[in-house]
Amino acid sequence: MDKKYTIGVDFGTQSGRAVLVDIATGEEVASAVKVYPHGVIDKYLPDGHTKLPPDWALQHPQDYLDVLSETIPSVLKESGVRPEDVIGIGIDFTACTILPTDKEGTPLCFYEEFKSNPHSYVKLWKHHAAQGEANRLNKIAEERGEDFLKRYGGKISSEWMIPKVWQVLDEAPEIYENADKFMEAADWIVMQLTGVEARNSCTAGYKAIWNKHEGYPSKEFFKALDPRLENIVEEKLSSDIHPIGSKAGEITAKAARLTGLKEGTAVAVANVDAHVTIPAVGITDKGKMLMIMGTSTCHILLGTEEKMVPGMCGVVEDGVIPGYFGYEAGQSCVGDHFEWFVKNCVPASYTEEARIRKIDIHTLLTEKASKLKVGESGLVALDWWNGNRSVLVDADLTGMILGCTLLTKPEEIYRALIEATAYGTRLIVETFRESGVPIKELYAAGGIAEKNKLMMQIYADVTNMEIRIAGSTQAPALGSAMFGALAAGRNRSGYDSIVETAKHMSKVKKEYFKPIPENVKIYDKLYAEYKILHDYFGRGANDVMKRLKKIKAEVTQIR
Amino acid sequence: MDKKYTIGVDFGTQSGRAVLVDIATGEEVASAVKVYPHGVIDKYLPDGHTKLPPDWALQHPQDYLDVLSETIPSVLKESGVRPEDVIGIGIDFTACTILPTDKEGTPLCFYEEFKSNPHSYVKLWKHHAAQGEANRLNKIAEERGEDFLKRYGGKISSEWMIPKVWQVLDEAPEIYENADKFMEAADWIVMQLTGVEARNSCTAGYKAIWNKHEGYPSKEFFKALDPRLENIVEEKLSSDIHPIGSKAGEITAKAARLTGLKEGTAVAVANVDAHVTIPAVGITDKGKMLMIMGTSTCHILLGTEEKMVPGMCGVVEDGVIPGYFGYEAGQSCVGDHFEWFVKNCVPASYTEEARIRKIDIHTLLTEKASKLKVGESGLVALDWWNGNRSVLVDADLTGMILGCTLLTKPEEIYRALIEATAYGTRLIVETFRESGVPIKELYAAGGIAEKNKLMMQIYADVTNMEIRIAGSTQAPALGSAMFGALAAGRNRSGYDSIVETAKHMSKVKKEYFKPIPENVKIYDKLYAEYKILHDYFGRGANDVMKRLKKIKAEVTQIR
Repeated sequence: MDKKYTIGVDFGTQSGRAVLVDIATGEEVASAVKVYPHGVIDKYLPDGHTKLPPDWALQHPQDYLDVLSETIPSVLKESGVRPEDVIGIGIDFTACTILPTDKEGTPLCFYEEFKSNPHSYVKLWKHHAAQGEANRLNKIAEERGEDFLKRYGGKISSEWMIPKVWQVLDEAPEIYENADKFMEAADWIVMQLTGVEARNSCTAGYKAIWNKHEGYPSKEFFKALDPRLENIVEEKLSSDIHPIGSKAGEITAKAARLTGLKEGTAVAVANVDAHVTIPAVGITDKGKMLMIMGTSTCHILLGTEEKMVPGMCGVVEDGVIPGYFGYEAGQSCVGDHFEWFVKNCVPASYTEEARIRKIDIHTLLTEKASKLKVGESGLVALDWWNGNRSVLVDADLTGMILGCTLLTKPEEIYRALIEATAYGTRLIVETFRESGVPIKELYAAGGIAEKNKLMMQIYADVTNMEIRIAGSTQAPALGSAMFGALAAGRNRSGYDSIVETAKHMSKVKKEYFKPIPENVKIYDKLYAEYKILHDYFGRGANDVMKRLKKIKAEVTQIR
Repeated sequence: MDKKYTIGVDFGTQSGRAVLVDIATGEEVASAVKVYPHGVIDKYLPDGHTKLPPDWALQHPQDYLDVLSETIPSVLKESGVRPEDVIGIGIDFTACTILPTDKEGTPLCFYEEFKSNPHSYVKLWKHHAAQGEANRLNKIAEERGEDFLKRYGGKISSEWMIPKVWQVLDEAPEIYENADKFMEAADWIVMQLTGVEARNSCTAGYKAIWNKHEGYPSKEFFKALDPRLENIVEEKLSSDIHPIGSKAGEITAKAARLTGLKEGTAVAVANVDAHVTIPAVGITDKGKMLMIMGTSTCHILLGTEEKMVPGMCGVVEDGVIPGYFGYEAGQSCVGDHFEWFVKNCVPASYTEEARIRKIDIHTLLTEKASKLKVGESGLVALDWWNGNRSVLVDADLTGMILGCTLLTKPEEIYRALIEATAYGTRLIVETFRESGVPIKELYAAGGIAEKNKLMMQIYADVTNMEIRIAGSTQAPALGSAMFGALAAGRNRSGYDSIVETAKHMSKVKKEYFKPIPENVKIYDKLYAEYKILHDYFGRGANDVMKRLKKIKAEVTQIR
């Protein structure tokens, strides 16, 4: 029998990448990347003169179409695989990344009349200009005692669907009016491929306050936000939500011309980049938490019951793997932490040493930090340089470091910052456990996880758990490819569940990180100190961080 | 009438300097510096092969004689002043800086048989190898309930006389045995000039546990330390203590040959560099605290009653100005703080900017920090990088910084460190006030005080007091010169008290620093935060710093 293949396309923040994968083994036969021509639009619209306010982050949907039309033909060509042997395709996207379209799905920014209106474009996940709307939403939801808040750790983020759509209504009612719908870019891509609107349960659940049993929030709630939003679901969204792991439709003739795939090829319901990585590393059961580590860290975990966990980003039934509750949590400052340090705190002598030895400054710092024994620096830090989005969910918290002496070296601070993020992870793990969601093992994906062995060993030692590392450097695309294979159905792929698919196609590295008992013992003591400080500064005993922020705001006259 | 002159010689850590001053006006007519040929001896003895253990810091007494024989002739020559018009000389020294001598005052290290014995040399103030002796002394004194501890804020420092002499006895009994006496280098210099031993009340009081009314600790106490120390006062020290402001003697024929001064010129009782600065800036009454700012800060203050102030270094009657109680306090990490920061935390881009603009990195950081509004950084730090030698007297405390965000800049941290030292000063001021010792005005001397206007303004704003700056860059030498004039007696100098002398000869800069009311208001709020953190981490509510140090000691197996 001929080998069969599947394609996964992962749409990131700066680029999209496709992988072509052997469905029997998960082997990645070919891959291709397309950097978005417009990148992140945060200063001027593509018209070259419409200036954007601070905190805006837009994208151009044509860039996404370019990814489809360039990377898919490229992997077909590179691999020599015939289109008829590609049985399915799956895609994943950053989220919440949304756009307004007309009835046919044409983005409003494609219209001449709207192309100079910022609200007609894609609002990228990190568009932060809907904070006012998010604040009002949370206030009203709290006042009304809305139950849904509990599923999101008590707070709806400004990055999510409703605040973003509400911002459009507030600032550009003409766009809101002319939009037939607001879609996740993930679902929009699936619509471009299949011609049908088949919204996915992952983004609906995590980003649009949708629940499998309760649906969206009530009309009364939306009306309380703004009378014009009363019928937002019927008018601008959709209640036809498709579970992760199902088939959305098939490649249309038009999409076949765009991509080079055969008409009729199965297309999976879309997914979110972080969440789709779960089956890519072979997690198909509870007790295993995946950390996707980049500038920030996203934690995904499966559970068999719906538990309310303080500070989690969300819990969604079928949101990650059908049949499970998918939990999401986050740490807002991981890679960013180290970038800040390298940019602001590394002395010229170190920069020079790295230059002479022709190594990256992170490599140099990691090398020096690796030579330190656990506890040797005498430092402990609170990892709140970008606030706390974990258990405390408090953006007004700030970073702290303690234990400095005149002999404290840069690599000791660097290591203390790594350790602080590890303590933050342990606190998330313990909070899940205390809330009845077991965690026994860790998995890690993303650039930091692949590159920084010291960091992974520290995480293993701090959490006292083994850590397995994603076997693919493009784990999200592999995950999407797996859902593509599944969408093709048992007859073509041999798989009828993602669990089955993952058994054959998932990838973790052979080498994994084991806790070192003597380090675990010392980190237990250090973590106890972190926890005391975490609670003292984070739970109201001393709100110095908030008071300092208030003083800062007063003197700089920022609201 | 011919103009009359006086000479002050200030013996520092690296060099000695002489100034020749007009007694009528305090005008500095000439000055000269001699760098010690042997500098600080902390690796090998002058024999070139005897290696010193860590924490040792010695000096060679010949260097001090070189200062006398070079700088005094030099200022006479430079000024053209005739030796007969120099009516007096005063000297000041670092302290506690001690040496063993024979009966005639010849240093034991001048003996061929002892020149390879480290204990025969001068032990410099920052010789820290007597910590074991200091610990034992403090323990025994506490157990015995010795009253004298109160006058030293509860602790005798390893830098002081008794621990240093005890170390000699412990490690080199042959030197102890052969020493006719142990002297402060200050008193030894006076002996070289006058041929008489006239020990000063300042070093005796602050460094040798001597009290005007109670004398030294009891024989029983010394015996409890070590039976061989029972008669240390009679055998190796002296109870003949001369008050500051009196005449020690006159220049001998031998000293006249050495210095070019006339035989019979009056020589003042010696003084300590920090303490002698008090009259040099015109302080002759209570309520005015002088800060001598260098790597660390020394605070000197006059009072009219003996009060026990938590954490002060010492209170000595007549120790600074006759008729007053002289209080001394300290902050262990001031200039050192900024040096640590510059060496370890300033990014290459800043180093490069300073290089291109041909300015010092401190100048660049100060320039950038000056542009920040009070409270704008949102940072607050605890200035304990070198422990706390102020109110808490706890070497095991460590530094902390709080309020960091991803936008925190190096100049913000730099300014936060300056502010932390200012808060530390305010806490000392408030502690004195609460203990019944008033402080209404600040004076500052030393390199930092002269150079860093931002820092002085911050100190004025934080303490809400005016700050006057020493008018002489060699304020200690000027102070010594004043005591020299006084020693000459009313008939020759026209002065019969240091108060009178200071009225005519002291110098402060015209420009002084006034608190800026709007800054004071914000700093009141920030200081309140500092105080909460100071007490939380410093007074036992959370001993995290000590626990981290303990862990550090365990893992590095340092005692």
